[in-house]
Amino acid sequence: MINIAVLGYGTVGSGVFEVINTNRDIINNNAGEEINIKYVLDLRDFPGDPVEKVLVHDADVILNDPEVRVVVEVMGGVEPAYTFVKKALMAGKSVCTSNKELVAEHGTQLLKTASENGVNFFFEASCGGGIPIIRPLCTSLTADRIEEISGILNGTTNYILTKMETEGWDFDKALKSAQDNGFAERNPEADIEGYDACRKIAILSSLAYGKTIRFEDIYTEGISRITHRDIEYAGKLGCAVKLIASCAYLGEEEGYCAFVAPVMIKKEHPLFPVNGVFNAVFVEGNMLGPAMFYGSGAGKLPTASAVVGDVVEAVRNLGRTLPVAWSDEKLKLSEIGNIVRRFYVRMEGALEERLSAIEKLFGRVNVCRMEDETPDFCFITEAMAEKTFDEAYSKLEGALGRIRVDNLSV
Amino acid sequence: MINIAVLGYGTVGSGVFEVINTNRDIINNNAGEEINIKYVLDLRDFPGDPVEKVLVHDADVILNDPEVRVVVEVMGGVEPAYTFVKKALMAGKSVCTSNKELVAEHGTQLLKTASENGVNFFFEASCGGGIPIIRPLCTSLTADRIEEISGILNGTTNYILTKMETEGWDFDKALKSAQDNGFAERNPEADIEGYDACRKIAILSSLAYGKTIRFEDIYTEGISRITHRDIEYAGKLGCAVKLIASCAYLGEEEGYCAFVAPVMIKKEHPLFPVNGVFNAVFVEGNMLGPAMFYGSGAGKLPTASAVVGDVVEAVRNLGRTLPVAWSDEKLKLSEIGNIVRRFYVRMEGALEERLSAIEKLFGRVNVCRMEDETPDFCFITEAMAEKTFDEAYSKLEGALGRIRVDNLSV
Repeated sequence: MINIAVLGYGTVGSGVFEVINTNRDIINNNAGEEINIKYVLDLRDFPGDPVEKVLVHDADVILNDPEVRVVVEVMGGVEPAYTFVKKALMAGKSVCTSNKELVAEHGTQLLKTASENGVNFFFEASCGGGIPIIRPLCTSLTADRIEEISGILNGTTNYILTKMETEGWDFDKALKSAQDNGFAERNPEADIEGYDACRKIAILSSLAYGKTIRFEDIYTEGISRITHRDIEYAGKLGCAVKLIASCAYLGEEEGYCAFVAPVMIKKEHPLFPVNGVFNAVFVEGNMLGPAMFYGSGAGKLPTASAVVGDVVEAVRNLGRTLPVAWSDEKLKLSEIGNIVRRFYVRMEGALEERLSAIEKLFGRVNVCRMEDETPDFCFITEAMAEKTFDEAYSKLEGALGRIRVDNLSV
Repeated sequence: MINIAVLGYGTVGSGVFEVINTNRDIINNNAGEEINIKYVLDLRDFPGDPVEKVLVHDADVILNDPEVRVVVEVMGGVEPAYTFVKKALMAGKSVCTSNKELVAEHGTQLLKTASENGVNFFFEASCGGGIPIIRPLCTSLTADRIEEISGILNGTTNYILTKMETEGWDFDKALKSAQDNGFAERNPEADIEGYDACRKIAILSSLAYGKTIRFEDIYTEGISRITHRDIEYAGKLGCAVKLIASCAYLGEEEGYCAFVAPVMIKKEHPLFPVNGVFNAVFVEGNMLGPAMFYGSGAGKLPTASAVVGDVVEAVRNLGRTLPVAWSDEKLKLSEIGNIVRRFYVRMEGALEERLSAIEKLFGRVNVCRMEDETPDFCFITEAMAEKTFDEAYSKLEGALGRIRVDNLSV
């Protein structure tokens, strides 16, 4: 029997409890050991809940108990999670976490601590919820030079963009629906402004490229300026607007391009049909070509499923640290201003009156108009450096918004 | 330095050679060792090819060399592959193979031999080409009871069906195009009739459910009877026709439903947008919910990428057999005749003249007609047991074909 402890009895923590209780036989069979939840740590009490029997309020009870071999950290936030995780690893316990803030902030360091103590630090559930992506990156995609890793990594924003498209809602209505359905927090800033996706792509690209990319260094833009009209135009252009978190290899000299931003994705792209609260991660390898991993990016049980999958792997590998290629060395990022791509711009007014001004600023463009009464139109630029685009855009009169266009698109 | 040997210098074998040479640094870094191809076995000579330096014609040179720690088997076919693989495992060498016939026929047995000799038998490339699916099943989806595993597992048939849809070609023209482009063999029977997909779903479902499913026991139907007109009707119904290989859990009493057959898939299903030579595997877990793995299902370099990923994992795990939950015990399959689902039927003649006969045989149906001159129409039945449908269908006059409908569809 292997004793484990769970730090935090919130959504994911209670999910871990439920997964282990529901699928006990399958999980024990896969682990090759009976897995027993010896403690659950939470500051709160849960009268009447079966967790009561194993509930403790003091982390030291867990950290000082040598019988606990694996610690599940699902508290969220950097502190006190970081202190507890570090102490657990140093006490010779493996740690499995769903905490993206913790991993994005202290990932390499905790991997090093784990390695020094002969244990494992696993974090499959920190990116893409239940989708298996981190273990495949570490143990399957090991024969390739990764050229690109891009994903729809936030279910809240994908739900909002999907509802704007399918229901014709504007951003505020779609956000309210997300909140009413429990897909968005009361304070939705971390999702809406892309901060959540930013931490996830920082983790995924650090693993894909084997070097550290700091989330603070990733250009990040949210979806709050996307209008329903933009999404209508995207549809007319054979595209969808998705919040894409991406890190791509440009070349020896340029380094890597990392960003989080709404992007117009063409119908042919594997990420195009990823709708609602689903997430997906697209990976391009120099030998493998394109691949994609799709599933539930959030939610109590899918996330807990990934955490418990990590627990099984930790139990199978007691006394042995699995290799993870994520060094301290910083990944070389290209300035966002130097990235060359096409842009969509929506304009107020009549095309005929504005076209010559547009062409003077942007050169040749493709224009598109709806067959309705709204006095607007849009255009797509040729590929140009972002800073060149920004300069021209700042001089443009009548602009209502702009969205990056995927290089495959339009 | 770890010495490996490659059995077979055909498409995949030369791909393995190319992947290891192109991505040498990345691969060695991931493996934690320098990987050296000491031998390549082939009966042929390759004058002028860099492989010449390591080419041997006698398998015993490899099997008797204690310096060879990992053997890559990419010859295809059951014999002599089986004999060589068995001997290699018994000689204490791990084996990585792309050979689905071998794994479908002797998988459990070779896993047992590997375990008895403290080595590994890996076969990621045997299903879904480069798509990581077997290692995720074994090491990530370990906290779930799998409810269903279904896939588009054959690139040739998916290319043909996609071309019939997008180009309006009939089956023969699409098959010829697949052959001209090297996606189909001169004798395409194994692909077209579903035998290839059948072996792959036998392997995947054995791993997903932990028991053995024999490929001979899986109901298998190919795509040669699908017409362009059926695909037009599918489009009108918001569906696509895909060759689906599937194994789903029905319940304690009924057991599992396994089949390979063309199926009408609704637009909302994650497998719907999987086109051309791409493959995808859809998995539903009782905690995880739906997930999907997408990528290149065949091709020299994607397949070789998966094989070399296995080699990296074999080198990381020298002296240690990784657990694989695939027992000898047979999975309990339900008779295909007992499976309850809806069917699409295409009919010649006028709807008005035939409807009462149809309703007498099938009960209430949904009918659909094209807005063109062709004297045909189609109908979709309510859900019914396959044997009930078959009996009614055998009595139906004017039927031009029938296709299973996914339970989510129409």
